Amino acid sequence: MAVSGLSINLATVRQQYDMRQAVEACLKLDISAIAPWRDQVHAIGLGEAARIVADNRLKVTGLCRGGMFPAADAEGLRAAIDDNRRAIDEAAALNADCLVLVVGGLPKGSKDIVHAREMVADGIAAILPHARSAGIPLAIEPLHPMYAADRACVNTLEQALDICDLLGGGVGVAVDVYHVWWDPKLYEQIARAGAKGKILAHHICDWLVPTRDLLLDRGMMGDGVIDLKRIRAAVEKAGFSGPQEVEIFSEANWWKKPGEQVLSTCVERFHTIC
Amino acid sequence: MAVSGLSINLATVRQQYDMRQAVEACLKLDISAIAPWRDQVHAIGLGEAARIVADNRLKVTGLCRGGMFPAADAEGLRAAIDDNRRAIDEAAALNADCLVLVVGGLPKGSKDIVHAREMVADGIAAILPHARSAGIPLAIEPLHPMYAADRACVNTLEQALDICDLLGGGVGVAVDVYHVWWDPKLYEQIARAGAKGKILAHHICDWLVPTRDLLLDRGMMGDGVIDLKRIRAAVEKAGFSGPQEVEIFSEANWWKKPGEQVLSTCVERFHTIC
Repeated sequence: MAVSGLSINLATVRQQYDMRQAVEACLKLDISAIAPWRDQVHAIGLGEAARIVADNRLKVTGLCRGGMFPAADAEGLRAAIDDNRRAIDEAAALNADCLVLVVGGLPKGSKDIVHAREMVADGIAAILPHARSAGIPLAIEPLHPMYAADRACVNTLEQALDICDLLGGGVGVAVDVYHVWWDPKLYEQIARAGAKGKILAHHICDWLVPTRDLLLDRGMMGDGVIDLKRIRAAVEKAGFSGPQEVEIFSEANWWKKPGEQVLSTCVERFHTIC
Repeated sequence: MAVSGLSINLATVRQQYDMRQAVEACLKLDISAIAPWRDQVHAIGLGEAARIVADNRLKVTGLCRGGMFPAADAEGLRAAIDDNRRAIDEAAALNADCLVLVVGGLPKGSKDIVHAREMVADGIAAILPHARSAGIPLAIEPLHPMYAADRACVNTLEQALDICDLLGGGVGVAVDVYHVWWDPKLYEQIARAGAKGKILAHHICDWLVPTRDLLLDRGMMGDGVIDLKRIRAAVEKAGFSGPQEVEIFSEANWWKKPGEQVLSTCVERFHTIC
């Protein structure tokens, strides 16, 4: 029986498997939805990755990741935009539901987050026509404010949706519980996103107490404090019916366990916790 | 010549000095504004702390800290409220500008941040009459969202100001750049706070890239990415004219240096960076 409604972001098992191995391990557990990272796709080649997806009729809930727009100079901005266009093409080849955008933080040496945010909106605007013609929705992923300096200066759903309002069709949001669970306006903004059909992905994991590393200490669902069922209910009520995508970066714990154990734990927690 | 406009939160030198020693070291540098923590006050006794403040005509920009309201049961809530009333009395004895509230996170075992936030608003409402009659303004300090689970479930200025609107006079906000610098609504909400006379304190330090510990890796002003001058200008334009209060928790760096070096660096950076 297929595990309906569950997708595995392949970063969750990136230390254990390449993309081909990860897909095999998912299929053994009847998981048929995945979200690969571009480096994982490149490692086996885009053609081979696309074949694996097509042959196994996989649902690709997103390709990670485009974005990283802010740059210190015009050349850097242009390079970022070119790279995002390639990412859109890769997402199309994989028949992905969306290209996830981690928009980027402050350029080196800058303290001007207001300007960084302008560069992000301009960058998304620049790639949007290509995304639309490729049929690939762009999913702005607001990242937790602790990543504002070095990974993403879009840090709340409200802010991401304001950018969506500015840019029109073809761009929405990825709702990752790790990044947004704390937000006092979470439920209001999920409803806002849903009303405009802007929820493109729903990522899950958990917030551990204590959290020992800003980047690589995400928890398995149920091991932390996020009210996953409540957020899921809000996301579904808002009209999103796609799979919940497990995305766990866990250097000291899950990345050290056998991949089969990680995936079977995801399935079990998905059924009991999410 | 007195260093006008600079206050030292004594947590900045808590590993080097007790309160008496810290005041002596500040006075040597002509710093005459401080903000002690309650444990530092208790260690030398409230009477002695009050004498030190009065004898040296120190400005106390805040007492840290009240708050920590959410509790798993009624007894815990009552204990928190009692403790906050004592904190108000201590702030009054020290002639502090405000009692800083770090409001508390999730009670043990809870995933219900919405309820925790209700307990916070109720707790502040419960102590507010005592604060008003003692003449001690309560400064809600929104903490960075990375502390939502374990330290403070009030995480943005907007949220804190919504609570202020609910509760009326005698309660405002502490604007700590470390906690709010990332906020897309920062300048809008500083203006909102100022228009209502709700800015009670302005704390400074810096956000390091990378940040190696969620709690104890704050940077000295100028060593990170926060646009301190821009925030200062906004806070002043909003009508706050009190000192900037340096509050740095730095286990691996500043807490290991001689106290005089830390304080003289604060003075130098205050003049050049802030």
